[in-house]
Amino acid sequence: MQFELLAQRGEARLGRLTLAHGVVETPIFMPCGTYGSVKGVSPDQLRSAGVQILLGNTFHLMLRPGAEAIERFNGLHQFMGWDRPILTDSGGFQVFSLADMNKVNEEGVSFRSPINGDKILLTPERAMAIQTALNSDIAMIFDECTPYPISKAGAESSMQLSLRWAQRSRAAFTSDNALFGIVQGGIYPDLRQASLEGLHKIGFEGYAIGGLSVGEPKPAMLETIRRIAPKMPAQSPRYLMGVGTPSDLIESVRRGVDMMDCVMPTRNARNGHLFTSSGAIRIRNAVHRASDEALDANCSCYTCQNFSRGYLHHLDKCGEILGATLNSIHNIAYYLELMRQARGALAEDHYDAWALTVYAGWSETPPPLEFDLEAPQ
Amino acid sequence: MQFELLAQRGEARLGRLTLAHGVVETPIFMPCGTYGSVKGVSPDQLRSAGVQILLGNTFHLMLRPGAEAIERFNGLHQFMGWDRPILTDSGGFQVFSLADMNKVNEEGVSFRSPINGDKILLTPERAMAIQTALNSDIAMIFDECTPYPISKAGAESSMQLSLRWAQRSRAAFTSDNALFGIVQGGIYPDLRQASLEGLHKIGFEGYAIGGLSVGEPKPAMLETIRRIAPKMPAQSPRYLMGVGTPSDLIESVRRGVDMMDCVMPTRNARNGHLFTSSGAIRIRNAVHRASDEALDANCSCYTCQNFSRGYLHHLDKCGEILGATLNSIHNIAYYLELMRQARGALAEDHYDAWALTVYAGWSETPPPLEFDLEAPQ
Repeated sequence: MQFELLAQRGEARLGRLTLAHGVVETPIFMPCGTYGSVKGVSPDQLRSAGVQILLGNTFHLMLRPGAEAIERFNGLHQFMGWDRPILTDSGGFQVFSLADMNKVNEEGVSFRSPINGDKILLTPERAMAIQTALNSDIAMIFDECTPYPISKAGAESSMQLSLRWAQRSRAAFTSDNALFGIVQGGIYPDLRQASLEGLHKIGFEGYAIGGLSVGEPKPAMLETIRRIAPKMPAQSPRYLMGVGTPSDLIESVRRGVDMMDCVMPTRNARNGHLFTSSGAIRIRNAVHRASDEALDANCSCYTCQNFSRGYLHHLDKCGEILGATLNSIHNIAYYLELMRQARGALAEDHYDAWALTVYAGWSETPPPLEFDLEAPQ
Repeated sequence: MQFELLAQRGEARLGRLTLAHGVVETPIFMPCGTYGSVKGVSPDQLRSAGVQILLGNTFHLMLRPGAEAIERFNGLHQFMGWDRPILTDSGGFQVFSLADMNKVNEEGVSFRSPINGDKILLTPERAMAIQTALNSDIAMIFDECTPYPISKAGAESSMQLSLRWAQRSRAAFTSDNALFGIVQGGIYPDLRQASLEGLHKIGFEGYAIGGLSVGEPKPAMLETIRRIAPKMPAQSPRYLMGVGTPSDLIESVRRGVDMMDCVMPTRNARNGHLFTSSGAIRIRNAVHRASDEALDANCSCYTCQNFSRGYLHHLDKCGEILGATLNSIHNIAYYLELMRQARGALAEDHYDAWALTVYAGWSETPPPLEFDLEAPQ
């Protein structure tokens, strides 16, 4: 893996990431291909929507079809027919959020499969073995996703466990692919700092910010990013996990983040919640029933170029599969286009001005750049 | 509408149908776009799969979004983003098969909407008005789909009602588009003959065979087609409604049919039942779990060119939307490719030999050409 920092504007960065399966321009958004499929969207539709890199979920794929099954296909790329880069998470987040009866100890996390009830033990070593079998371009260390709210002592103890698992992940990961560390520490800046230092000492190809967008107030999320991102190694990519809305993307990039992922564009699409240059739209709202307008007049995606709001409203109302597909294509294309514009603005050094025009389109104003984390909330 | 009969081989015909929205080569199969969407498949995917003409369902579209809504979009083509020909049925079949509490009298059929319970009256005049609003290239008369089994007296009375409705349909249909009559009469050859004569006297741009594939034994269906199709006007297209399996397509063309439609390729696809040149495949069968083979090595569709049986098995098992889409793309492409080959075989005058090679691929033998309808069954 190679990362080139092409420009820095304030804390925002323009970069280029060269991976085993191709080049990724940063800042970039990565759609989620949970079970080896970005729900409802085919690989050629993803390419047309401008997707450069996908996220695959270790937790889901270890359950179905299983790492061994995917290994027989020489990895996730060949299995799902996607030849551009893939990043896989380590399963940690989903174990904590989706699996019942999980039991955490020093060794790892044991839980029951939500598919068939099998007892499963996920450890740093197992998470690395699975990601090696998936042959993702970028693997993530196995960590504990610290919940919110949590006491500082609880956050510290969780962060320290994640650091020990980071060490074991690094030792167990013998693939040539890239491995990223994950900074934890809740919304406590000094814990974040300690986590980052510990990870940096171990040494990773890139560094992620984990444990955000888990219930904390939005200003606390942005402030945590603002405080830690600029301290992360400048010559390595910085990945903010599981975030977020279009505004979150703009604000995170402004604070120094290079890569982001989230299920929001696809999950919201399936529920008829669509992102546009003039703000969010609920397509099932009756106001769209007779509309022959494009979903977003400024969007060049397949959906906006070929169908009306009235048709998308109808498909949603009838529960037609095609509605989920067309909505997902648009939301993904919208996120990718936002990142393309962000890169252009960074290249031409007018990021803040560009961001203001985007917010104006949404009839919103940007959040304040700083926030007092210690103030009573 | 213009129909050119290019060649006749036995009873099988090669033709070319020129419609308001383009040319259709016959024999042809038409996928069903029930609610203004071929379930799970986008218009560009339909074009790539070789689709030349779609069927739209008046019954479904009158319920959602309603004929008036589609009229505001200048018809079904613009509403659903499909610029090639469309044939619409008249709603009759679905009223009889899907709607509860339908009440038939001379005027038409009254029933309750399965969507919202509204009381709806569908008459020949209303069915023609709706299809005019949809602006389909080919509209169908409103008829009663005669059930099976039924006494000869019952079949005759139903056929006569359909003839009177055919007359009213013709009178009410003032559009420039084509209107097809529908031959009824159950499996009684003389009733079929009388129905055809009655329709021919009224005069239509094309003639369909209705009321088959409604429960009668397969040999009775094929024999009914064999007896009536050759008597239908040679210079007009002949459309067999709601049929059928790949074998049914081959046998119906052999007996003189030019056009067919059926939900089978798409409905079966969503249930993991896939048609291939080596026979039908249930993709959820565990034998496909680790298979890196293409679904059909002889198929050039997007699915077969890019994905393995193992991946399709996985998508089916996870209930992923993309599985329904990829399966549907293949089944549609398979049906269209079968018709393309049939046209080639007719052009080169070796239809029977070609059909034998297709059956050999399935490890099947063709059904007998003739069948004694009067024999005790």
